Amino acid sequence: MSKSTVIDALLAELGADLVQLPAEFGSRKLHDWSGLHGAVPTALIRPRSTEDVARALRVCHAFSQPVVTQGGLTGLVGGANALGGEVALSLERMNRIVEVDRTSATMTVEAGVPLQVVQEAALDAGFYFPLDLGARGSCTIGGNLATNAGGNRVIKYGMMRDQVLGIEAVLANGEVTSGMHKMIKNNSGYDLRHLLIGSEGTLAVITRAVLRLRPRPTAVATAWCALPDYDAVTKLLACSQAQLSAGVSAFEVMWAGYYDAVLANLPLRAPLDKHYPYYVLLESVGSDPDRHAEAFEAFLGDMLEAGVVSDAALAQSEADAQAFWTIRDAPGEYPKFIPHHSAYDVSFSISDVGQVAAHCEQRLQERWPDALVMIYGHLGDGNLHIVVDIPGSEGRLHDEIDRVIYDVTREFHGSVSAEHGIGVKKKAYLGHTRSDAEITAMRLIKTALDPRSILNPGKIF
Amino acid sequence: MSKSTVIDALLAELGADLVQLPAEFGSRKLHDWSGLHGAVPTALIRPRSTEDVARALRVCHAFSQPVVTQGGLTGLVGGANALGGEVALSLERMNRIVEVDRTSATMTVEAGVPLQVVQEAALDAGFYFPLDLGARGSCTIGGNLATNAGGNRVIKYGMMRDQVLGIEAVLANGEVTSGMHKMIKNNSGYDLRHLLIGSEGTLAVITRAVLRLRPRPTAVATAWCALPDYDAVTKLLACSQAQLSAGVSAFEVMWAGYYDAVLANLPLRAPLDKHYPYYVLLESVGSDPDRHAEAFEAFLGDMLEAGVVSDAALAQSEADAQAFWTIRDAPGEYPKFIPHHSAYDVSFSISDVGQVAAHCEQRLQERWPDALVMIYGHLGDGNLHIVVDIPGSEGRLHDEIDRVIYDVTREFHGSVSAEHGIGVKKKAYLGHTRSDAEITAMRLIKTALDPRSILNPGKIF
Repeated sequence: MSKSTVIDALLAELGADLVQLPAEFGSRKLHDWSGLHGAVPTALIRPRSTEDVARALRVCHAFSQPVVTQGGLTGLVGGANALGGEVALSLERMNRIVEVDRTSATMTVEAGVPLQVVQEAALDAGFYFPLDLGARGSCTIGGNLATNAGGNRVIKYGMMRDQVLGIEAVLANGEVTSGMHKMIKNNSGYDLRHLLIGSEGTLAVITRAVLRLRPRPTAVATAWCALPDYDAVTKLLACSQAQLSAGVSAFEVMWAGYYDAVLANLPLRAPLDKHYPYYVLLESVGSDPDRHAEAFEAFLGDMLEAGVVSDAALAQSEADAQAFWTIRDAPGEYPKFIPHHSAYDVSFSISDVGQVAAHCEQRLQERWPDALVMIYGHLGDGNLHIVVDIPGSEGRLHDEIDRVIYDVTREFHGSVSAEHGIGVKKKAYLGHTRSDAEITAMRLIKTALDPRSILNPGKIF
Repeated sequence: MSKSTVIDALLAELGADLVQLPAEFGSRKLHDWSGLHGAVPTALIRPRSTEDVARALRVCHAFSQPVVTQGGLTGLVGGANALGGEVALSLERMNRIVEVDRTSATMTVEAGVPLQVVQEAALDAGFYFPLDLGARGSCTIGGNLATNAGGNRVIKYGMMRDQVLGIEAVLANGEVTSGMHKMIKNNSGYDLRHLLIGSEGTLAVITRAVLRLRPRPTAVATAWCALPDYDAVTKLLACSQAQLSAGVSAFEVMWAGYYDAVLANLPLRAPLDKHYPYYVLLESVGSDPDRHAEAFEAFLGDMLEAGVVSDAALAQSEADAQAFWTIRDAPGEYPKFIPHHSAYDVSFSISDVGQVAAHCEQRLQERWPDALVMIYGHLGDGNLHIVVDIPGSEGRLHDEIDRVIYDVTREFHGSVSAEHGIGVKKKAYLGHTRSDAEITAMRLIKTALDPRSILNPGKIF
């Protein structure tokens, strides 16, 4: 059928209020933060309800019309970009907090609610929603679910899938799977929730979710630690998890190369006077401010005495803690000093991370002796971020750098995507992490649930 | 093809060491703890390796021969029973601990390792494996994965799916999906691990797993609390989670009817002198024995002063704590005094649990005035266990009692299986918890991954 026929059918079914044509897009943002080229969707559907989504998908299914679902468009792998011929489905109008249930410690939301709105509503209700990432103001719960978002506090609270008790989703044919349960335990048949979470819009459109709220931590302790070698880093991780009683809420490692480049290029204050091979931003949360601070300080003292930590600065105020975090959050400022850098999000067994970092650095610098290699990450999750800049390359070496990093990832049985997803950007490397049998199984599931391949085609596989 | 042809092919492929015929079964246990009638398998395959499992399934797939996978046979819903015509595949010989990786805090195991062996190996290595249930000595990691086992410490550590970083499994056609990763973060394509976990042997045979180990808690505080009403119970839950700093490792509620029946029928000591409407066994773990005990006692004092708790006994020794747990674990002794009871494992929104319990009790006693109704559960997970005995019924009323309990479960949007699975026993009630669209999606996935329906047919759906 011709394109105009599908659009006509969508307009007839949903009305002009819900269906916009490209002439009406104006300056609307249509692509994510990946920097990848994306196409302009042939129409934009903005449903107000799950039933609207179901009606839209029934029409698209009937016409075998591809659909790309969009949330806050803050993804980094092109997962929400149109590739050509898709209609876009934006959940921006489904942005209501439906309920906060204080007894069950749950919040029921529509998929279009921005993450920060959920975080704030949780605090207002006396709770805490732990998922946190830089894009919090723009990214939406639906996007967080579609990509199984991670972030800094996974070590304590887990990823997005661990923050969700139930989801409602619309399948490719418009059928609504309503699993809006509030229970932690629910072993009744296959866990479709976990299959849909992280499937990047290729299996269903997630429309609503029951989020799990946590007790609000009332004590936070933060330290900037300097360490002599990588063994000391893993030792600090193990000791902090054993001795800080499940309080460890961030364990952010920075290699010297990262720290030096950040301090050299951004107007930041060094937390310590001297220079060391490794730095760790350690954060622990608890419920009793006095006891917590005391235990944290005692722990740091033990680590200094044992030589695990060479030196440390303890945050005496929120401003101190914020200053430490600013160094860790510097990647947001990279565009200012290395606009053409390549950035990676990979994960490994914690016991391999030190070697992996050394291999990557060595291979890159063998090939490009003046390569700037900045390595940092969430060590408790085995998650490394690697940023590479080859001066003068002007971005022409992205593919070659990809191959170096992803080959090391394959050698160490790592994941080519720790938290960003596969999207378009990492499609060629999915087989570095998943076996043929796994990818075949994924494709069988995709075909079973979306036989006409209308949901976000061209992504993941 | 005739049955003997398949068996011949299995014998030819695997040899007599791996394939036993019924004449050789002797007194071997063939059925689970559900009490449901099961058939005798036509053969028993006992592989020594993943490759053996793959070879066995390739033959079964070629002959469209149904297979039932068996672990420790401690399930409660008939999920591992043969129904007629299956060969059984027991992973009892794949019982090796392959590796303990102290830096990554992981343990790699074969699926046939008993849970208790894993728990003990974790302690020996200075770690803790938190999954725990009564069948620990017999149940296996493979069975725990196939059923997504729960237990008492889910409130702090999650269910079995939260204890696993990677799994290896063999699909119906003998293909091996090897996802033995050690990372917490791995967003590369669909999460097959979470789909296979809890699928009760119907989608694949799980052969190996990478388990996540936790720091060993070095402080445990336990109290037996008496409460005046259900609101106080939910208040104690919320306050303990907010104030005991993620330490709450068990929150076991017992209704008075449970407590009275247990104390009347078993030789146990009452922890408190008086009688109350609700009891809670509260346990909290930490890493600093002195501080932890002090904080726990202060918290209990606050709760007593606020009237949330009417009275409480604090365990002064491990023996005291054990005595409290013996009251909670009394269901293991039910066969002695109510051999024909019906037992339920359901879950609800925490805010509904009080009403659900009242409804169940009322409806049962309206219909059978002398019904004994014993209610207890893991409140933090919304998980209720309900035990019903109708004196003189000799077990003839199971189906009618099922209908009462599961109708209430449907009315309150609960789950007909919190932690036991569906198996055969709850098949008729799956639709009480899952929508038609969800069940259709599950069937599509089943058909996609196991087109000849050889893996545990007749279970779940």
